[in-house]
Amino acid sequence: MSHSATIRVRFYELDPYEHVNHSVYIQYFEAARAQWLTEIGFSLAKLKADGIQIVVTEIRTRYLGSAGPSDVLTVESELVDVRRASMTFHQRIKRNDETLVEQTISAATVTTAGRPTRIPIELVEALQGPG
Amino acid sequence: MSHSATIRVRFYELDPYEHVNHSVYIQYFEAARAQWLTEIGFSLAKLKADGIQIVVTEIRTRYLGSAGPSDVLTVESELVDVRRASMTFHQRIKRNDETLVEQTISAATVTTAGRPTRIPIELVEALQGPG
Amino acid sequence: MSHSATIRVRFYELDPYEHVNHSVYIQYFEAARAQWLTEIGFSLAKLKADGIQIVVTEIRTRYLGSAGPSDVLTVESELVDVRRASMTFHQRIKRNDETLVEQTISAATVTTAGRPTRIPIELVEALQGPG
Amino acid sequence: MSHSATIRVRFYELDPYEHVNHSVYIQYFEAARAQWLTEIGFSLAKLKADGIQIVVTEIRTRYLGSAGPSDVLTVESELVDVRRASMTFHQRIKRNDETLVEQTISAATVTTAGRPTRIPIELVEALQGPG
Repeated sequence: MSHSATIRVRFYELDPYEHVNHSVYIQYFEAARAQWLTEIGFSLAKLKADGIQIVVTEIRTRYLGSAGPSDVLTVESELVDVRRASMTFHQRIKRNDETLVEQTISAATVTTAGRPTRIPIELVEALQGPG
Repeated sequence: MSHSATIRVRFYELDPYEHVNHSVYIQYFEAARAQWLTEIGFSLAKLKADGIQIVVTEIRTRYLGSAGPSDVLTVESELVDVRRASMTFHQRIKRNDETLVEQTISAATVTTAGRPTRIPIELVEALQGPG
Repeated sequence: MSHSATIRVRFYELDPYEHVNHSVYIQYFEAARAQWLTEIGFSLAKLKADGIQIVVTEIRTRYLGSAGPSDVLTVESELVDVRRASMTFHQRIKRNDETLVEQTISAATVTTAGRPTRIPIELVEALQGPG
Repeated sequence: MSHSATIRVRFYELDPYEHVNHSVYIQYFEAARAQWLTEIGFSLAKLKADGIQIVVTEIRTRYLGSAGPSDVLTVESELVDVRRASMTFHQRIKRNDETLVEQTISAATVTTAGRPTRIPIELVEALQGPG
């Protein structure tokens, strides 16, 4: 299953080069993942209430192009690997058909005390579901 | 004339109180004004290319409620005063019918060298237009 | 009593006008207040653990100048009014002797459930203390 | 040669997990690189005035720990590879002796029109200099 989100570039996200600062795409990727989780009934707030936090352990991000003022972007997200207490997503930010940024991100599920904890099976099923 | 924009709260915009940090609404307000200007053909990029910058000179912002995870908000903007080289907007951020934040903001038009310059009459007409 | 904090402008905080975006000063002001509270033993984390949140209710901010790349700024903060469950601060951001931004900010103390609650007397004394 | 910068965590950079959001470390890393460049006389503003932009092409970031309220962090940066029109840095964010985040980042030098351009030899020498 994969997810698609729409993001509109905001003026303050541009830096003096007049394109979106590279750190902002990391925020777009997170926003898209959080939106996906919310849409399938596992918002970060709900998970937190259940005592589970999803913490990012590694990102690998390649910048192929750059977004500018008023661009409307699509963030595509896909779950590519699931372990007992970690997941890996592949994500892409596109402007129309052009991929601007792509990212592989790994995250772990931990308790609020920071200890690894099993990913809820229902969450895995929802992320892998028929979409 | 007035303008309405839609903003979806992003996870990283929440602070440890689990609501949107008060500085973020200032960003939402700016994003909505910039979107309005773009939609009427006066994007900040175009204005800058014409040698004009719109700089904020004063904001007065009242916080009446707070937004949380996954909220979808509406930003309403209205031009309430125009002078030779300055404008004042009134803006409101709402969740459904509830006003969470309201702001009066004044901005000046300056040259790229920072000197006051007359607001283009076409811009004023577009902001005051029939909508 | 008053407090002084030092802030160094970061590149991503600049917008295409090559100066610090106006929303960022709101973040600088908050950072300075939070640093002050931490230094006098009332960090926002400690207050939260005690069941108290400080929420901003109104800001009035005037922009007199602008900061650019690599500027090192001073944020001066002063408590100017205290009520039962609210406080008002006056703050200034300066580059050397030039005031770039000044702000009056009111905040309320509320419980984690959002109900008004009395400001701890020790906090008021610390903010008003001899410095 | 390597560079060390100090960063103080700001309240709004914390997310509902009460630690610094993972995107913020990317901003810290950039701030540290920009500070380094400024200190050796090659600020991003100066480079831009010379027609050169440094654009990030890839980051690989590992999160080993997390920073919380009021933490004061050290960002260590080191140039590990230089090509004709690209550079690679290794960076680390530490709290005392504990490494919280480490990053390998590649950046390219391009003209303001976005075409690859040779890194100024003086810049390379300054980055590799005796410190």
